Amino acid sequence: MKEKDTTTFFRETLSFWKDLNDAQRNTLKDAMIMKHFEAGELMASASDRCSGLFLLERGQVRVYIISESGREITLYRLLDRDVCIFSASCILKNIAFDVFIEVEKETNAYLIPTAIYRTLSKESLAVQAFTNELMASRFTEVMWIMEQAIFVSFDKRLAGFLLDQSTIEGSLLLSITHERIANHLGTAREVVTRMLKYFQSEGMVSLSRGEIEILNENKLQQLLN
Amino acid sequence: MKEKDTTTFFRETLSFWKDLNDAQRNTLKDAMIMKHFEAGELMASASDRCSGLFLLERGQVRVYIISESGREITLYRLLDRDVCIFSASCILKNIAFDVFIEVEKETNAYLIPTAIYRTLSKESLAVQAFTNELMASRFTEVMWIMEQAIFVSFDKRLAGFLLDQSTIEGSLLLSITHERIANHLGTAREVVTRMLKYFQSEGMVSLSRGEIEILNENKLQQLLN
Repeated sequence: MKEKDTTTFFRETLSFWKDLNDAQRNTLKDAMIMKHFEAGELMASASDRCSGLFLLERGQVRVYIISESGREITLYRLLDRDVCIFSASCILKNIAFDVFIEVEKETNAYLIPTAIYRTLSKESLAVQAFTNELMASRFTEVMWIMEQAIFVSFDKRLAGFLLDQSTIEGSLLLSITHERIANHLGTAREVVTRMLKYFQSEGMVSLSRGEIEILNENKLQQLLN
Repeated sequence: MKEKDTTTFFRETLSFWKDLNDAQRNTLKDAMIMKHFEAGELMASASDRCSGLFLLERGQVRVYIISESGREITLYRLLDRDVCIFSASCILKNIAFDVFIEVEKETNAYLIPTAIYRTLSKESLAVQAFTNELMASRFTEVMWIMEQAIFVSFDKRLAGFLLDQSTIEGSLLLSITHERIANHLGTAREVVTRMLKYFQSEGMVSLSRGEIEILNENKLQQLLN
């Protein structure tokens, strides 16, 4: 991106930008580092609590937790223009859980180093408010996932996942393994396979190795009601 | 409480107190209202998003959600000196979920009106930081509950709940219904009854109408490992 475009991008994605003075803006611009990630890379693991905030220019990332027994569940996804705060959770007093952040599609992201963000937080109410709003958004997403996982039957959750995935991919043919779906939904692979076979027997999907084709979107959609 | 004791209480429980100026402290003291709640009362329901922050002087409160189908799960509890922030969630931008707040034991709490807290938040970095830390604490508690509910087997969760409850009550004899336990743990009453009967057959508890007596703490504790 050109210098001017970069500034526009920061102004549009960082709500506190307009409240910073010139010195603060320059410090921030000088400190930001553009990072490139390939699909499959870990942007941060549970032990990287101080990498800094990632501001996604373009890409797709999933944030998830792993249980003691090795099971996973996706908490939320980050897409273009989203900010990842838990890669800087060391600056969030009282956050005592760890997340993993995995790149799903090639991603370009600006890294705001922890030290810079910490200094700005101490100087600016707008930066504090930004942190607050970001945390509230993620909290809301996690509450939704929790409600789904605890209160919603698995056929509905799987139907919802396939439809969401189809929207993200822009295709009815999904290249995804049953294991991978299990890791998104916090369950075991066998549970996913069993339900997908049921969906196939009802004519909603067609299964082949590493791929799921959605044959009847309406019928999947009806499951959600 | 006497005037002097009240001030000491605020200084000890509100981390931003020391950073306020005299005018702000006086505004806050004048605006705070002591409220009294009996066990069973709702301190706030999902529709009261703007009551204000409650600062518990003494008491016990549970914060929970209700699913569309009417099932409940307890997110966390508040005890003496805790602050309830979700009764003022209207000031938290991006919080888009609703919680219920129910009094479990007679509670005295100071209410900080929403308007006052909103004004202080706009003036004071310390107040913003307090909000952030409070939200981060609750987020951490919810993540723990979610991990438990999704990844931990129900016998462990129930054993843990009975032991926690026994600590809170200071007694091995718990006056609680199976329905009530189900509402804490996000499950159906039948599931609780079935597991309690199993615990009884193993000599860990003894069941009678509306009461559960813990007979073997060690054996319940061993279930957690």
